[in-house]
Amino acid sequence: MTMYEKIAQEFVSLIERRVLRAGDRLPSVRLTTRSHQVNPGTVLHAYRHLEAQGLIESRPRSGYYVRKIPPRRVAEPTKTSPNSASTPIVVGDLIVELVKAMRAPHMIPLGLNCLNPALSSGEDLNRAAARAVRRLKPASFVHDLTPGNPALRRLIALRYVGTGNAIADEDITIMNGGREAVVVCIRALTRPGDTVAIETPNAWPQLAALEGLGLRVQEIATHCHEGVDLTALERAFRSGAIKACLIRPTFQNPLGCLMSDAAKRALAKLVARYQIPLIESDPVPELYYGLTRPRPVKAFDEADFVLHCGSFATCVAPAYQIGWIATRRYRGEVAKAKILLSLTTASACQSAMVEYLAHGPVERHLRRLRHSVLARYRATAAAVADYFPGDCRMTQPAGGFLLWVELPKGTDSLKLYRLALAKGVSFAPGPMFSARHEYTNCLRLNFGYASVQQIREGVRTIAQLIGGASS
Amino acid sequence: MTMYEKIAQEFVSLIERRVLRAGDRLPSVRLTTRSHQVNPGTVLHAYRHLEAQGLIESRPRSGYYVRKIPPRRVAEPTKTSPNSASTPIVVGDLIVELVKAMRAPHMIPLGLNCLNPALSSGEDLNRAAARAVRRLKPASFVHDLTPGNPALRRLIALRYVGTGNAIADEDITIMNGGREAVVVCIRALTRPGDTVAIETPNAWPQLAALEGLGLRVQEIATHCHEGVDLTALERAFRSGAIKACLIRPTFQNPLGCLMSDAAKRALAKLVARYQIPLIESDPVPELYYGLTRPRPVKAFDEADFVLHCGSFATCVAPAYQIGWIATRRYRGEVAKAKILLSLTTASACQSAMVEYLAHGPVERHLRRLRHSVLARYRATAAAVADYFPGDCRMTQPAGGFLLWVELPKGTDSLKLYRLALAKGVSFAPGPMFSARHEYTNCLRLNFGYASVQQIREGVRTIAQLIGGASS
Repeated sequence: MTMYEKIAQEFVSLIERRVLRAGDRLPSVRLTTRSHQVNPGTVLHAYRHLEAQGLIESRPRSGYYVRKIPPRRVAEPTKTSPNSASTPIVVGDLIVELVKAMRAPHMIPLGLNCLNPALSSGEDLNRAAARAVRRLKPASFVHDLTPGNPALRRLIALRYVGTGNAIADEDITIMNGGREAVVVCIRALTRPGDTVAIETPNAWPQLAALEGLGLRVQEIATHCHEGVDLTALERAFRSGAIKACLIRPTFQNPLGCLMSDAAKRALAKLVARYQIPLIESDPVPELYYGLTRPRPVKAFDEADFVLHCGSFATCVAPAYQIGWIATRRYRGEVAKAKILLSLTTASACQSAMVEYLAHGPVERHLRRLRHSVLARYRATAAAVADYFPGDCRMTQPAGGFLLWVELPKGTDSLKLYRLALAKGVSFAPGPMFSARHEYTNCLRLNFGYASVQQIREGVRTIAQLIGGASS
Repeated sequence: MTMYEKIAQEFVSLIERRVLRAGDRLPSVRLTTRSHQVNPGTVLHAYRHLEAQGLIESRPRSGYYVRKIPPRRVAEPTKTSPNSASTPIVVGDLIVELVKAMRAPHMIPLGLNCLNPALSSGEDLNRAAARAVRRLKPASFVHDLTPGNPALRRLIALRYVGTGNAIADEDITIMNGGREAVVVCIRALTRPGDTVAIETPNAWPQLAALEGLGLRVQEIATHCHEGVDLTALERAFRSGAIKACLIRPTFQNPLGCLMSDAAKRALAKLVARYQIPLIESDPVPELYYGLTRPRPVKAFDEADFVLHCGSFATCVAPAYQIGWIATRRYRGEVAKAKILLSLTTASACQSAMVEYLAHGPVERHLRRLRHSVLARYRATAAAVADYFPGDCRMTQPAGGFLLWVELPKGTDSLKLYRLALAKGVSFAPGPMFSARHEYTNCLRLNFGYASVQQIREGVRTIAQLIGGASS
């Protein structure tokens, strides 16, 4: 544990033991610097870390204060414990309904996994894109054919520099967004009837996509802090039935958990030892609440068994739907699967991204976006703590814009969903996150789309309906 | 038969019986007007029809002449006769190689099914697209989510007006190009293990896509003029095993055949009677050699069992990869399958197409393109007739930019492909067009990409290698 982590941990402990309570002022940076005999930067680092976790807040010209409703007041769910057999998948049709709900006026959309595009790059991006398409050459269609635009692949490769694992441009294949990236990996690595290891709970579009491709899944227990259970995963690998695994180690959907670097390194070694490819879904690594951008498992992937699926579609440029896959070992299979699914990615979109990445204020935009998402997280956690019954549990995501809530035992979240929809609020009910329709008393809230005020209102509406939704 | 068709048929007969020979001048329009007692427009119509078929050519200020090498000199292939059992699919990896060959410098690319983007819309499109993306609103991402941009769906629906079957905007779902449209239909209608009826020979990306989705195919005999054999198709339907059929009735790939309106109507009735959905792939209806744009089967589809897959990606705007599916009955399944495969189509591309379709010179562009493609067809047919051995057979496509050639029995077209590639010419070898790797002595030429001069050179190179490619 580094010095700043020690200091932070000390304050966490003080808050948890209620020595420091909501509204209490923390000792000033100068004071703590003296008392701990460290330099001021270390203390500031510790305070910002606590702030990022939503435990304290800074008030301008005044100092740091314990937040009024620290999210910890609501307990976290425990590790999931799925059945150990593999299973065919049957997911409902709620997905189309949730897309519709996003477009309905007067609806508070807390359902779909989607950032509000008003938080995306806006005018700077429009200008860059207009420049790019204005001078598009006919030949660019051919140059940008799968695997994709060479300049774009280079710019993406450069973004891996500093994660600890160099990616060459020729190992990047451009996709129509992050979802196609995952589907293409699945198609490249599996045949109908194969079994894929996945986390549980899991994103329902992934479950439905796996279902549609005729695959079986082995659900692996997942902890809401530490991510997928590596012991359980290895047990599944040993069974010999697993053809590939599909995991989101950074801000998992729906749990929001972030695997530690040590766990990521262990995961990379594990898949290499069993020679089972890992599809690493990583659409929003930029939305971290901590101090630094988390590294992907791909960063520890010396043996090249990880297919890293990235995307600009959520955080940077939703209107352009550019995603990619980074893999050297499987790039041939990946290119073929992409060509068969959709031939290529629109050259106009690829060129627009090149222009924006090369000349646009991407990092400044991402800083603002992180700030905004963190504020939304705090407001949402506060609203859940304020309105939901005391015996609910709620995750403490390390990043992203999704919150997973366990309602009191016996609550039927599908029933609650119907009731909430009638009152103008949508969310994603728990059974959509399991191949077996488990998590009947859970729900996922997206706090990246509606306004903070709407979110609070939506959470209150849902809370009022919980009592009438017992199964 | 209308009067102009009668007149045209009369001259076809004179040419076939060699009463009129290469270089002979046809009677002037005025003369034929008098001799047949019709009005001049009818005669002109007949002559232009013969010209479109490549039988005669007009020489400025001189008149119409029988073409020196009418394509008919080379006989046409006969109807294909596939094995009647359904079969799992195994297609090779040549597809990635052919995409690579398109980008290789000094290569004459006659392989991939792709128009030269230099023939696409160019500057007008660039300007329209720049206007559209310059003013893109964040909310457009949400408005344009699957099923897609409302204005674009309306403009597409309007393009069906006049085909005889009204399509409502809400029955259009926007896709990432024509290939994704077909894949989404397959996903929406079938499960792994199901059997799909298809034409043979067939486009290999389709075979490979069906293979990847774990489907079986039943190959249906297809005539190089009349298209799919409806009797054989009905026999397959009667077996009860067919879940859907996937057919390209207009300029089939690779045969180039065009089903007549009567056959299309019969096909629409057939699928309605057996309640088996028809995926109608129709990416290039604009590239007709005749006088009018052919109508889709969808135009005769009163019972709504046809999913019409259209696209702007080949003829209008390759850089934007916009395709669509028109279906009311299956639109729910289609939207779901699209969301699971790639969530949505880039809003920027949809907006750009709206701007171009609403304000750009689309029809003028398509007229020019048709003219250019027809000239390329004639040059290619002439080159094949000049250089290939006398016992070759070659199709007479009714539109599009693909030519299918049967080489002398015993020629190994895969061997020929390797030889040609070494000499800097690519084409698509016959076995790629069959689930059973039949058509070993056939090949497909794309005359829509290379220059006319390159095509002639490429055809000559291939011809010189045929002797050394016997199996």
